[in-house]
Order: sequence, then structure tokens, then C-alpha cells
Amino acid sequence: MAESSHSATPPTFPDGDEAALRASMARAVAAVRAENPLAPSITNTVTQSFVANAQLAVGGSAAMVYLPDEGEQVASMGGAVYLNLGTLLPVYEQTIPRTARACDVAGTPWVLDPVGLGIGQLRTELLQAVRATPPAIVRGNASEIIGLAKLWGLGGGAAPEGETPGEGPRGVDTTDEVDAARAAGVALARFIGGAVAVSGPADLVTDGAMVVRAAGGSPLLCAVTGSGCSLGGVAAVYACVTDPFTAALTATALYNLAGARAAEHCAGPGSFQVAFLDELHRATPEDVAAAPLVFETA
Amino acid sequence: MAESSHSATPPTFPDGDEAALRASMARAVAAVRAENPLAPSITNTVTQSFVANAQLAVGGSAAMVYLPDEGEQVASMGGAVYLNLGTLLPVYEQTIPRTARACDVAGTPWVLDPVGLGIGQLRTELLQAVRATPPAIVRGNASEIIGLAKLWGLGGGAAPEGETPGEGPRGVDTTDEVDAARAAGVALARFIGGAVAVSGPADLVTDGAMVVRAAGGSPLLCAVTGSGCSLGGVAAVYACVTDPFTAALTATALYNLAGARAAEHCAGPGSFQVAFLDELHRATPEDVAAAPLVFETA
Amino acid sequence: MAESSHSATPPTFPDGDEAALRASMARAVAAVRAENPLAPSITNTVTQSFVANAQLAVGGSAAMVYLPDEGEQVASMGGAVYLNLGTLLPVYEQTIPRTARACDVAGTPWVLDPVGLGIGQLRTELLQAVRATPPAIVRGNASEIIGLAKLWGLGGGAAPEGETPGEGPRGVDTTDEVDAARAAGVALARFIGGAVAVSGPADLVTDGAMVVRAAGGSPLLCAVTGSGCSLGGVAAVYACVTDPFTAALTATALYNLAGARAAEHCAGPGSFQVAFLDELHRATPEDVAAAPLVFETA
Repeated sequence: MAESSHSATPPTFPDGDEAALRASMARAVAAVRAENPLAPSITNTVTQSFVANAQLAVGGSAAMVYLPDEGEQVASMGGAVYLNLGTLLPVYEQTIPRTARACDVAGTPWVLDPVGLGIGQLRTELLQAVRATPPAIVRGNASEIIGLAKLWGLGGGAAPEGETPGEGPRGVDTTDEVDAARAAGVALARFIGGAVAVSGPADLVTDGAMVVRAAGGSPLLCAVTGSGCSLGGVAAVYACVTDPFTAALTATALYNLAGARAAEHCAGPGSFQVAFLDELHRATPEDVAAAPLVFETA
Repeated sequence: MAESSHSATPPTFPDGDEAALRASMARAVAAVRAENPLAPSITNTVTQSFVANAQLAVGGSAAMVYLPDEGEQVASMGGAVYLNLGTLLPVYEQTIPRTARACDVAGTPWVLDPVGLGIGQLRTELLQAVRATPPAIVRGNASEIIGLAKLWGLGGGAAPEGETPGEGPRGVDTTDEVDAARAAGVALARFIGGAVAVSGPADLVTDGAMVVRAAGGSPLLCAVTGSGCSLGGVAAVYACVTDPFTAALTATALYNLAGARAAEHCAGPGSFQVAFLDELHRATPEDVAAAPLVFETA
Repeated sequence: MAESSHSATPPTFPDGDEAALRASMARAVAAVRAENPLAPSITNTVTQSFVANAQLAVGGSAAMVYLPDEGEQVASMGGAVYLNLGTLLPVYEQTIPRTARACDVAGTPWVLDPVGLGIGQLRTELLQAVRATPPAIVRGNASEIIGLAKLWGLGGGAAPEGETPGEGPRGVDTTDEVDAARAAGVALARFIGGAVAVSGPADLVTDGAMVVRAAGGSPLLCAVTGSGCSLGGVAAVYACVTDPFTAALTATALYNLAGARAAEHCAGPGSFQVAFLDELHRATPEDVAAAPLVFETA
């Protein structure tokens, strides 16, 4: 895309900013190991265990709840909260909006994972409700990011001229899907005043001003349930100790690194998941800061 | 049992039918890897993660929901649906019957796993309710299959003369239990017009006309929670691309194969489960089609 | 602590009692493997799978439920029940008290795991409600044990002169926290007429008369979610075949043993959890009975 037309060429990203951001990532990795911050979650039952184990592997602490008053209470206990809408229960009608509001009141950043967007009425209602007290980070795959931007009325705002959000420019197979969510991601990030992480074969993280593309990982991440959810949970852990953009970027870079390393010594998705948790635990601040990232302006 | 009396000797199974069935199994394994079909589930919280990871390992896609309208919606989204009654929540009173009816309307095959049959009032009510819009596949252990056939008033119909369902003929230790469910399984399969898979030390799969006995696996499958549940979920994945009998047979044969292979290089139930997921992922269509199966007429 | 002052020196523990207790532990390990006892649970969704897999690994059988009538039913089915308050659902308002009462009526011992004590109103209400039909075993970390003793009005009773429960004597880093819960644990054990297991870097198990300190384990146990929960579930399995004190002690000793062994051949928390389940499965009665334990009077 950068080479297809002059107008689409991104302005040069200042080297100093990249260096500062990488240094900030390294500090986040180290701070979490030193401080063991608690990032409570309301998250789907399928991948809860993986989310918690990933949060623990990077040095954080986990706690999952379902009830409204518990959500409100943990919103003021944790450094950051992770809300994942994967498997809704009836009580979530109360729990999700009340927890988001409590985060707003307490000034606690929270991460939204709009899993399953488009399935059922309650999920749509909850996503509309939390628009009023928005998250600091949104994490999702390309279609979830595009869908959320549309639901919140942001879809068209940041689309490049001649492009419709969700029907973005075609590129190579492995980045096309994520590229299609670039405009929606940027618009979402600007609206929430935080960061958006789009997960895919190649990832994209933006704060609305910068766009960072992250490569690496492994196709086996898609053969393990909860890779995306646990990335959201880990982003919440980092959001306990740093700004939303650095947090989203650190989690994404770490996942690509650990995924690539785990893929080197596994025999399938079972041993990959085991090795992946080990590599989350073993990665150093320097490893994460040196991740292969491409920086652009939004 | 086959040798105990002339009347009980099963008619010779046509070789051509066996070959056709094995070819169909190989095609199912390949089709799932090529098409990545979605088999949504309403399933127990204990083994959800293992169910989803097994579905992904064989090449399928997973999605779990709890709410009634979500069940109805995924019934028309997925190629086949997996309903497991292991850990009931209050909302299941609505979700299970409405999802089963939605599958019926949409023509979506579904797999019933009557886990915990006999525990609590709601489970019995739900099993009675779904009789009106029956599944394409029932998967259970011997006592669950016998119990379900009785609950649905089918228990006596197919019992060999002089035998009471659930109190079947005694045999060698490792097959006795499954043999006891043979008549119930055949009756259930005929009633639903689909297939029944009875899991045990040796498995039995029937479409009401044929009975296939599958050996292999490992005792360690019983030391890992969710082996049976995940087999049901994988059967649903195969039911997205083939008929119920082939789907149940393919899942059963693959589980025995992967279980036997995983047992060769593990140190206990922890490493067994990891290796098992790897082997689910690695098995080829030819491997599965060549599984040790014994074909009989029902 | 034992050496710091004359008054605090614990009376010598009779060697014969220690030998008898160790023999009882060996018998419990063997009996569970021989009898495959069922220990049903109402437990949090995050670690359910690990709890069940640990129960299976030691030779027991698992079943998880949520509904009130199911809780009552399993209370009379299982040899012992495990109630963990980690992730409360609205229906638990009925399920937990009714299950505890059903255990009381049936004479079924149950294990209480007061996870999350202090979070939300329902958890406090449930903990107050079950005081009337108390558990045979309480398992928790130091702050949970101290908190429960306070909630039940037992906090001050057994505190050594000059010490306030929860603000106990300072010691070396690795035992300080557990030591702080010693008085609360002893008071709780006397109140319930059973056993209390305090999990921490070094563990403490008491029946109100004796206090046993258990060392071993691995720091990696804290990097895996559900280590404590699954210890509670395994204690319930042993409570099916032996008295509460032996059950709590056997589970604790086995966990330290398996944790230390797993830590010897793992590369991080992912491979540690896998190896840990293997080691739970492989430990012999003699291994467990020979665990490094220090016996004191309470």
C-alpha cells in the first residue's frame, strides 16, 4: 500500500519516537515482573484458564469475576481491567456496564475484547452501552475492529478517500485482513483516546497517531483457543504499569516473539501452547524491545 | 458374544460397504482440514477449553455460547452444533430446547452428549424436551446411552431376546460395559435416524444398521477430563462435512489412533493430553481410514 | 520461631504419632488409586479443568455442578465434596448453602476453599451461611484463613499472647505469611472439628491439636493458576477414604513432592504444569509418606 500511490505513502516516522517507544516497552516488561500487578477480568469461560496463565507467565496476577458488585469492586482494586464478551451470561447485562462505569469513576484503564460481535442481542447492547465510558484499549481481529467502529458510528470517519471501512485495500494474503481494519482501528483509537490492537497473521497496533505493524508469531497461534483473549489479558497486565499504546504494543510484540520461539520446538498445537507459556515467561525486556516492528504515522 | 450362539452371530458385513465407509472417513478428515468448518457448542465449563482445542486441532473452528438467542443464531451459522449437558446453568432451561428446535428448522445436524444423565431435575427435563427434535449423533458412555434410550422409551425395543437393556451379556472386562449398551445404541440410532457412539475401553459406533467396534486408544484417556466431551465436539466438526455415521466413526477412529500414539511418548496424564492434541493435528486421512475397526450388522 | 523464646517452643511431638500419621497418608494414596472415589465439586470456572485433571491424576473421579438440586444430589453421591467460592454465579446463593446442608445431613465431609474472600457481598453472605454446617477441611492462603477466622468470630481465640491474628510474628520471608495464619488456622480447625491447610511458600496443616509444616514445592506453583484450587480438590478426593487431617496432609505433601519434581525438568510455567500432573500421577504411597514434614503441637 505504501508504494501504490504518493498520497498513501506514510510520513516518515521519527526515529527518536521509535526508540522511545521501544524503551518504554522494555520498562513495561520489567515493571510487571517486579511489581506483579493485578489485572482482574470478566472474561469468557472457554479461555479463562489460558488468560490467567498467560497473565501469570508474564509476571502479573489474575482474578476473574461475574457478579455486578464484584466487577465494580475489582475495578478499583486492579491496575487495569480486562472485559471480554466471549461467553455472555444473563448477569452480564448488569455486570459489564457497571464495571465499565466503575473503571471510569476510578480512573482504571480497561481493555475491551469484543469477541463474538454480531452474535445475539445482549452483546450488541453491551457494546453500545460501554461506548459512554470507553476502554483504554480495544483488542480484536479485523472483523471485530471493523464491526465495533461501525457500531459506534466511527466506521467512515477515518477511512482513506475512496475506501469503505471493512472493504479496504487488497494486499498480500497475510496482511490483507488486518489492513482492511486499519482505518477502523485508527478511528477507534482516536475516539477512545487510547490504543487499538488488531490481531491477525500480521498485527497492527495504533494509538490513532502512529500505526505499528508487528510480524512474527506462528500459524499455530490460530490452532490454540484463546490466543487472542490471552493477548488482551496480558495487555491489561501491561496497562497496569504503562500507557495504553505501550501496553498494547508490548503484549503484541511479546506474543509474536513467544509464538515464533514456541513454534521452533513443538510437535503440534498441544506442545505449542505449553512452549508458548514457557516463552512468555522467559522473554526478557530486551527481547521484547527488539521485536520486528514497522512504525508508520496513522 | 458372536460365538456364544448361532442366532447371535452377526451376518457377514459386505466388504464393499466397509471400503466405502473407510473412504468416506478419509474424505471427512481431508475436508475438515481444507474447509475449517465452524461447529458451535453449548457445552460444559469444565472441558470447554479441551473441546475447542480438539476441534481446532483437527482443522475445525469453535464457538461456545450460553444464551437462548445466541444458541438459535449459531444453529444457523454452523455446519453442525454440539450440545453437552455436563454443567447446566439456569438459562439452559431456555437455551437447550430453543437451540435444538432452531437446528431442526435450519436443518443443522447436532450432537447430543448426555453427560451427567440422572443428576438433577433440569437435565432430565431437557433430555425429554429435545426428543421432539432429535440429534443426528448421540455420544456417551455405556450407562448414558442405556439411560437415554430408557428415558426416551426405546430401551426395550431393540434388546436381544432374553436380555434387558442395561443388564446385557457379560463378556471380557474391557468390552463388557460397551457391549451392554449395544442394543440401546442401535435403538437410539434407529430412532434419531442418525448415529450413536458409545465410548469405553473399546468403542462402539452404530447407525442402527451397522455396528462398528473400534479398538485402540489408551487408558490415559480416562485420566484426562474431557476426552469424551471433546470427541463429541470433534464429531460435530466432521458432521459439518459428512453424514452422521461417518462423522461419529471418523471422530472415534481418530481418537483411538491419537490416544495410542500419544501414550507411546508421554510420562503421565499431563504430557499425554499435550501429545494427544498434537496427534489429533498430525493424523492423516489415510491414518484414520486405516484404523482397526470391526464391522458387523446391527 | 521455635528457637526465639522458651515459651514459644512447641512441646515435643510424639514420634509414634508421626509414624502413625505417615502410615495413614500412605494408605490414603493407595486407597484412592484402588477405589477411584468420586469427589464432586462446585468450583470456579477458571481452574475447573485443572482441578478435575488433578483429581483424576491422583486416582480419583470428578464431577462439577452449579444447580441447587444437583449440589444436594452430589452431596450424597460423593465420598467428599469440594466447594470453592472463586467465581460466584447468581444461582450460588441457593446452591452453596443447600449443598453444605445436604453434606451435613448425609454425613459427607466437604472442603471449603474461600477464594476471593472480601470481594463482593454474596461471597461474605455464603461464608457466613455455611458456618452453621461447617466443612471438614478448609484450604486457603494465609490471608483467606485469617479472614475466615475473623468472619466466623474465631480470630482472637487462639492467638498467642501479645499477637493479633493477621499481624503475626515476623520470620524469614518464605514462611512469614503462613506463620501469620497459624493461630487462625488452629482456631478454625478446632471450630470445625476438622483440618485446615494453609498454602504458601511453606505450608501449614493443622487439626487444632497438631501443626505440621510442609516444605518443598516450587515457586512455579504460583505461576500456574489453580494450584491452590486443585490442592483443595485433591484433598476432597483423599477425604473420601480417610480422616480430614490425613486428607489435608496427604494432598499438601503430594503437592510439594510433585511440584519439586516437576520443577526439575521444565522450561517454564507451561511445561511445569504438564510435568506436575504427571508427577501427581506417578508419586507412590511411600513417596508421599516420606515427605519432608515437621510436626509440632498446636
